[in-house]
Amino acid sequence: MLSTVMAPHSIAFIGTGVMGRSMAGHLIKAGHTVHVHNRSREKAAALIEGGAVWHDTPGSAAAAADFVITIVGFPADVEQVYLGEGGIVASARPGAVLIDMTTSSPALARRIAQAAAARGCSALDAPVSGGDIGAKEARLVIMVGGDEAAFAKARPLLEIMGKNIILQGPAGAGQHTKMANQITIAAAMLAWAEALVYAKRAGLDPARVLESIGGGAATSWSLVNLAPRALAGNFAPGFYVKHFLKDVRIALDSAAELKLDLPGLALAKQLYDRVAAKGWEDCGTQVIFRLYDES
Amino acid sequence: MLSTVMAPHSIAFIGTGVMGRSMAGHLIKAGHTVHVHNRSREKAAALIEGGAVWHDTPGSAAAAADFVITIVGFPADVEQVYLGEGGIVASARPGAVLIDMTTSSPALARRIAQAAAARGCSALDAPVSGGDIGAKEARLVIMVGGDEAAFAKARPLLEIMGKNIILQGPAGAGQHTKMANQITIAAAMLAWAEALVYAKRAGLDPARVLESIGGGAATSWSLVNLAPRALAGNFAPGFYVKHFLKDVRIALDSAAELKLDLPGLALAKQLYDRVAAKGWEDCGTQVIFRLYDES
Repeated sequence: MLSTVMAPHSIAFIGTGVMGRSMAGHLIKAGHTVHVHNRSREKAAALIEGGAVWHDTPGSAAAAADFVITIVGFPADVEQVYLGEGGIVASARPGAVLIDMTTSSPALARRIAQAAAARGCSALDAPVSGGDIGAKEARLVIMVGGDEAAFAKARPLLEIMGKNIILQGPAGAGQHTKMANQITIAAAMLAWAEALVYAKRAGLDPARVLESIGGGAATSWSLVNLAPRALAGNFAPGFYVKHFLKDVRIALDSAAELKLDLPGLALAKQLYDRVAAKGWEDCGTQVIFRLYDES
Repeated sequence: MLSTVMAPHSIAFIGTGVMGRSMAGHLIKAGHTVHVHNRSREKAAALIEGGAVWHDTPGSAAAAADFVITIVGFPADVEQVYLGEGGIVASARPGAVLIDMTTSSPALARRIAQAAAARGCSALDAPVSGGDIGAKEARLVIMVGGDEAAFAKARPLLEIMGKNIILQGPAGAGQHTKMANQITIAAAMLAWAEALVYAKRAGLDPARVLESIGGGAATSWSLVNLAPRALAGNFAPGFYVKHFLKDVRIALDSAAELKLDLPGLALAKQLYDRVAAKGWEDCGTQVIFRLYDES
């Protein structure tokens, strides 16, 4: 099903967790050759069955490809796979485009871009929003940082995985945009959780309150999608608390570098730290409601 | 244009500000007789021209009506027009339905309902969301507290002014629901303001950042409607800071009565107090962005 306007590429795909698995699957379906690596091989099994080529290290996968896409866990993992010994930057072919789709640090994205440039490669930071469903349905929001030439080369591949794909600026700008996304979400999570616990304590039916407030000036994606789950006692992860806390920490560090005081974000961090201290790190972010409800 | 299913009523309408003027206008157009009073008569001039009957006091208007609707400024004003000497409760006809559409205190709504009952009237608290545009287009969200019989009587009138009309519970429940609405908005305003000032300081184009984050999990009514105004330096009031602060104070008082700690709301209060201290009380709530941007 290869698009008639694009020749097939060799693509290394590092990180085949819930998100990466769907994304790499779309690339295979589009007719590209995909070289995969993941910390645990089992999570790549379905892709290998579907035609992906397994590699034991990120560097080995990268050496086989024109494009290297990564979506791993924490900034430390990003640093390791790109800049570690035998990592992507050391192994990539000259001219390769390296695309980190992990939500990670803007400063690290700039360091990777510099290291890549020194090796004759280009790098993009291209974190996503839209969760497992967005990945599955290939309608991720992709926020890109890097130079225009690399973006132009990568764009046809990004379009196989997402819908809203915008070059936000130079290296790091994609991560900064993702941070803006997470900052917008953070305090807004407290907002609806406080509203619903207030409604409950006031003796109202919070589900009925949602019917009133969900259609007006108070409405938001989280109110419509996450508040009903929280009210139903469903704290299963759409988006994990532990991953959200990672993002919030990166955002606070990045704001501190910019000498910017973000009290709403700082408060969200405090409360999600309490959520984590309760042992709810593997719940979905809507578990913030439970923190209020039980206190 | 009277609905074929409803006989014309005599309705007292107290408070013909930006919201009230549109709402009373819809009632006149629907064929009802509307008796108006407002603190300053000039603001009722257009309605009087359109057929409304002027009264010099709220009590005089109330004495002429089967339904009394109020939408005034602060809880102190609500208390005065209902419970003050020669006020609505003292003057209303037995059997009249008193409907306060001001955003006001849940505790005061309960006191008015008790006083009304003692005089053989019933009372509803029915604050709205949707702003001047919602009032003009008769698609307000109306959150109602009171008993079912009074709600059933009032509903055909409320339907002339709004679309989403829900009885949330007994007296005070409408105000509690409106507080939940404002609590949801409060911390969410900080959230997008912090995100956009972060984007700006990080060297991004915040308008382009909005294009990325406005379509995903970070989106909200305020992000889509207020953030672009703030970025354009347009701080004209859709919703006044001074009115929002009133609502936030009522919500915090009401939460304190429920022994409920709402740190996100408390933080929003602190920051909007700083907005007011800057002299921006008559700006729209999106001016919160300016507080961050200039600090």
